[in-house]
Amino acid sequence: MTSSDRSPESASQRAPGDRPYDPAPGQRYSHLWGYDDTRFEFVDARTVRLTGSRYPLAGAPLPHFLPFVEVLLGVPAGPEQLQESVRPGPLPSPVRNAPFLEALRAAAPELRTEDDDLTRLIHSHGQLSVDEIYRLLGGVAPQRSVDLVAFPQGGDEVHALVRLADEHGVVLIPYGGGTNVSGALSCPPDERRMIVSVDMRQMNRVLEIDRVNGWVVVESGITGKDLEAHLEAEGLTTGHVPDSVEFSTVGGWIATNASGMKRNRYGNIEEVVLDAVLVTPQGEVRTNPVVPRSATGIQAQRLAFGSEGGLGIVVRAVLQVWPLPEVQRYASFVFPDFAAGVRYLQAVQATGVKPASIRLTNNTEFRLGQSLGRAKTGRAALTQTLTNYFLTRVKRFDPERMVACTVVMEGSAAEVQQQARSLFGLLKAQGGLSGGPSNGRRGYAVTFAIAYIRDFLNTIGILGETFETSAPWSRIHAITDAVEAELHRMCAERGVAGRPYLSFRISQSYRAGVCIYFTMGLCARGLDDPVATFHDIEQRMREVVLEQGGSLSHHHGIGKIRQAFLPQVHTEASIDAMRALKRSLDPNDVFGAANHAFGAQDSPEATTRAGGSGPVPGLAAAHPGDEAP
Amino acid sequence: MTSSDRSPESASQRAPGDRPYDPAPGQRYSHLWGYDDTRFEFVDARTVRLTGSRYPLAGAPLPHFLPFVEVLLGVPAGPEQLQESVRPGPLPSPVRNAPFLEALRAAAPELRTEDDDLTRLIHSHGQLSVDEIYRLLGGVAPQRSVDLVAFPQGGDEVHALVRLADEHGVVLIPYGGGTNVSGALSCPPDERRMIVSVDMRQMNRVLEIDRVNGWVVVESGITGKDLEAHLEAEGLTTGHVPDSVEFSTVGGWIATNASGMKRNRYGNIEEVVLDAVLVTPQGEVRTNPVVPRSATGIQAQRLAFGSEGGLGIVVRAVLQVWPLPEVQRYASFVFPDFAAGVRYLQAVQATGVKPASIRLTNNTEFRLGQSLGRAKTGRAALTQTLTNYFLTRVKRFDPERMVACTVVMEGSAAEVQQQARSLFGLLKAQGGLSGGPSNGRRGYAVTFAIAYIRDFLNTIGILGETFETSAPWSRIHAITDAVEAELHRMCAERGVAGRPYLSFRISQSYRAGVCIYFTMGLCARGLDDPVATFHDIEQRMREVVLEQGGSLSHHHGIGKIRQAFLPQVHTEASIDAMRALKRSLDPNDVFGAANHAFGAQDSPEATTRAGGSGPVPGLAAAHPGDEAP
Repeated sequence: MTSSDRSPESASQRAPGDRPYDPAPGQRYSHLWGYDDTRFEFVDARTVRLTGSRYPLAGAPLPHFLPFVEVLLGVPAGPEQLQESVRPGPLPSPVRNAPFLEALRAAAPELRTEDDDLTRLIHSHGQLSVDEIYRLLGGVAPQRSVDLVAFPQGGDEVHALVRLADEHGVVLIPYGGGTNVSGALSCPPDERRMIVSVDMRQMNRVLEIDRVNGWVVVESGITGKDLEAHLEAEGLTTGHVPDSVEFSTVGGWIATNASGMKRNRYGNIEEVVLDAVLVTPQGEVRTNPVVPRSATGIQAQRLAFGSEGGLGIVVRAVLQVWPLPEVQRYASFVFPDFAAGVRYLQAVQATGVKPASIRLTNNTEFRLGQSLGRAKTGRAALTQTLTNYFLTRVKRFDPERMVACTVVMEGSAAEVQQQARSLFGLLKAQGGLSGGPSNGRRGYAVTFAIAYIRDFLNTIGILGETFETSAPWSRIHAITDAVEAELHRMCAERGVAGRPYLSFRISQSYRAGVCIYFTMGLCARGLDDPVATFHDIEQRMREVVLEQGGSLSHHHGIGKIRQAFLPQVHTEASIDAMRALKRSLDPNDVFGAANHAFGAQDSPEATTRAGGSGPVPGLAAAHPGDEAP
Repeated sequence: MTSSDRSPESASQRAPGDRPYDPAPGQRYSHLWGYDDTRFEFVDARTVRLTGSRYPLAGAPLPHFLPFVEVLLGVPAGPEQLQESVRPGPLPSPVRNAPFLEALRAAAPELRTEDDDLTRLIHSHGQLSVDEIYRLLGGVAPQRSVDLVAFPQGGDEVHALVRLADEHGVVLIPYGGGTNVSGALSCPPDERRMIVSVDMRQMNRVLEIDRVNGWVVVESGITGKDLEAHLEAEGLTTGHVPDSVEFSTVGGWIATNASGMKRNRYGNIEEVVLDAVLVTPQGEVRTNPVVPRSATGIQAQRLAFGSEGGLGIVVRAVLQVWPLPEVQRYASFVFPDFAAGVRYLQAVQATGVKPASIRLTNNTEFRLGQSLGRAKTGRAALTQTLTNYFLTRVKRFDPERMVACTVVMEGSAAEVQQQARSLFGLLKAQGGLSGGPSNGRRGYAVTFAIAYIRDFLNTIGILGETFETSAPWSRIHAITDAVEAELHRMCAERGVAGRPYLSFRISQSYRAGVCIYFTMGLCARGLDDPVATFHDIEQRMREVVLEQGGSLSHHHGIGKIRQAFLPQVHTEASIDAMRALKRSLDPNDVFGAANHAFGAQDSPEATTRAGGSGPVPGLAAAHPGDEAP
């Protein structure tokens, strides 16, 4: 065990290159989302730009975005609203379980560990916008942080960690890409045992590619991006593309029950992964041999899925791979309104035609996408004007009602052609028009910018969050209408400045329904306790979704922020059964992150906030007003 | 509770119309497979016929079948081999738990129950060829039979049964179509508590068809055939077609982890079923609301799948439905040998083209299909001769090596056309030729005859059984070669007359591998203990499959006959976790059928036979010789 000799440092005090640990190049050594070289910043009072060169959006000034925000939210969105972030004070000294540390040093002498403040802090949160990121920017550290971060290099070190943690009463919290948005990475505030975050990203090897059987064996800490890069060089892909694919890991996907945008063709994570090895205090959970499908009683290999770090650590997985598609083709369609778009998706679904991805944005999200366009000049500007003229004047599309559908088709040339024929053929019945392939491609590119926008808006006092639900087709409009109405009502009631922002898209469609992915935002300025206000509203939105027949989560998981609603979703018998599983595999609660059914659910209030039931200082104190930078 | 006033009667002593209970018309009031009006019978010494008019094969004399059996097995297969079946003596008096029965009468006064010997016997077995059917024909009743059969009409009666069984120490064994082939329905021989079989087939209502969301809500006792008939009238289908579809029930499919022949398009049972309600002694396991997909911790709604009657009773399920396909098209292909056929399947899989079903038979199974052809005369005979001439002389296909692939395509006309183009396009590279659509259709029709053939061969002293495995592509030939070699070796060693029969087909193909479905047979005549010999061989076949990298079961499940191998498949931690689940949901072991991880696994020998560890009288005693009828 090599201990870092860096001195503790606070979160906002770091220089480029100052990396307490070493994730993949350019990645994530701050609390914010994504790459550190990629941030939205003001170019001037009315213009922003995405820094770096990683994304298609990056580089050029984006003149339409701030005006869009101001129009939608009805509040100013300029540099004068910038709020300086406050660095959290030094963390309390880490809890140290000396016998555990000594035994660990003996059992795994090469295991790297760190316990400086920044590394501890980074490993004590995920990417919840308000509870985790906004609070940290306001200088509020979580009530309880991890005490040590371990970076195992292989399964032996993980086994040693699990065994010794079990023996010595230590808590382990598995850590993948840190992109979790359910509070799953936060530590229970009352935990008195030593907490060790197990950062799995050093276990990122591709162990085997089996072309005959179409699978790849990987260590679980590999990120989606690294895995796909490795496979692409071999002419292969898993086809699993969650929005977090650049940072999230195979182990995290399994533990959360992830979903990727190309699910139609490649499946959700439970279809992509053939088997996974879960290391628990009672031994490994895995199945022999790896086969495409089996009927051998209750499916043990499924236990890791949705376990949210509560049963053990996924160390290895076998994922299905496919030849890279011969053809990949984008398309986009516009419809006069959201209802027409939904009817279109439903018609596509009924035919059985399955483009790798098909998404429908509501009008607001469509306009958000437009607002991220560059300034157009010359011919491009003319084309844009003509397009707008055609849509709004000739076709009489209402710019404040029209919606867009973006499509990715993959397969052989013949297959893609056949899909395109079906998709285009179904347009007319719903009043749809083609918007061209480049708008399709752009729609997907915007997806990857959303979290960076979130971080940017946080700095000007606009809080945002995404939430998603799985819903039957028949409940879509009831859910979106109710969420929209209740959001406006609550914001008015709570004195939120301007108007709330709400956009949504249908990101997946199934035979039985869809995933609706919401983004909400509101201006925090002037609120007495913006974090608490945001929470009340957010929690109520989840309630509204449930009331209207949506599920608690399509793919983000329960973590801590949705625990209060678990009894509405699962029966008592089911919850007891999950806990019995937990007791069987982890009797001493080594995996004590206390997510979903494994946390206390007695008091709904206690579990509505990541970080648990302790007092949550409002950011208002840290941000007494809208300060100039 | 209305009690039957019929007197006990033995299994083979019954008149037409004499039905101790009332399943669907024409169905199953004997121990044999399927419809009672459908049996293979001798027309003359060299010819058989399938009675009734339910199947395409039925009616006409089949002159090629007996010669085929004689050539393949090298033993005579004529009427002179017919063995008379012996009726089992009266069953021991049923165990009666009087307080339970009294409480049940009070709680569910309308609940129908039966306790005559035939009804008890029928509900004490599934369709294992040797252990269950052949033994019964030989007059050997299971060591332990159920004591009572209950026929609940609705969920309230099931809840009452479960609650009172839990209170009074009674065992419940859920019963669906009785088509189980893993010994799951057999009673643990040492069970001293009262055992009640819960025949779910009166709970067969379609509760709701939701066209918007594409699902149907049904009571779990509905058979596949009834469900599909109901849906077809509405222009819909679940697309779930297991070989047992005529008799097996939705609840049975879930409990076993069933697979249907059109899985490529419609999914296996876990993909077809959106949610199921499992009634356990600790309450219901179900999920709210029903949505296409969710990430809410460990998936409670999956616990029923593969539970094999050990956790509770499935009472209701929501299944995905699809519009009936615009086009259904059959095709068949022939290849020079099995390896070429496998390469073809693999090529199809790699393209992503998914015909609803694609199957490959080995040469023996191909010839079995041919042997079930009618006598051809005139033009048909000429065509047949010309076809044979073309295949064997012009194309130089070896009749003892060539194999057939049968295909069902479904979808829109355009989609099917596109599939056909791909499928035909890939033929040439593997030396394949089209065999025409009618041979494709016929291939599927033969599937439904296999179990009737089994029952017929039993009567002439030829024992057969099917077993299946899920295997990676790379292990197919190793598995089939090893099974074939070991079967021949063991039969020679054990003095089996003639040669063993082995045919197999690839019934499903996945990205990562296939389901291989074997049929084995051997002549029991002259063996000292044919049942024991058959068992030893059968058990060794499973071992060989595992040794060669196949799974323990693709879709038949574990039941009792594969329990001995569970520790090779699942880790100790997994098995402990399954048992913890069981203890949580059913702490008093009400669902005490003792299948898969819920049965004793200490002694492999103890679990190799359905019916458990008690002495198994050889049939040799009951069949001292090959008697004329």
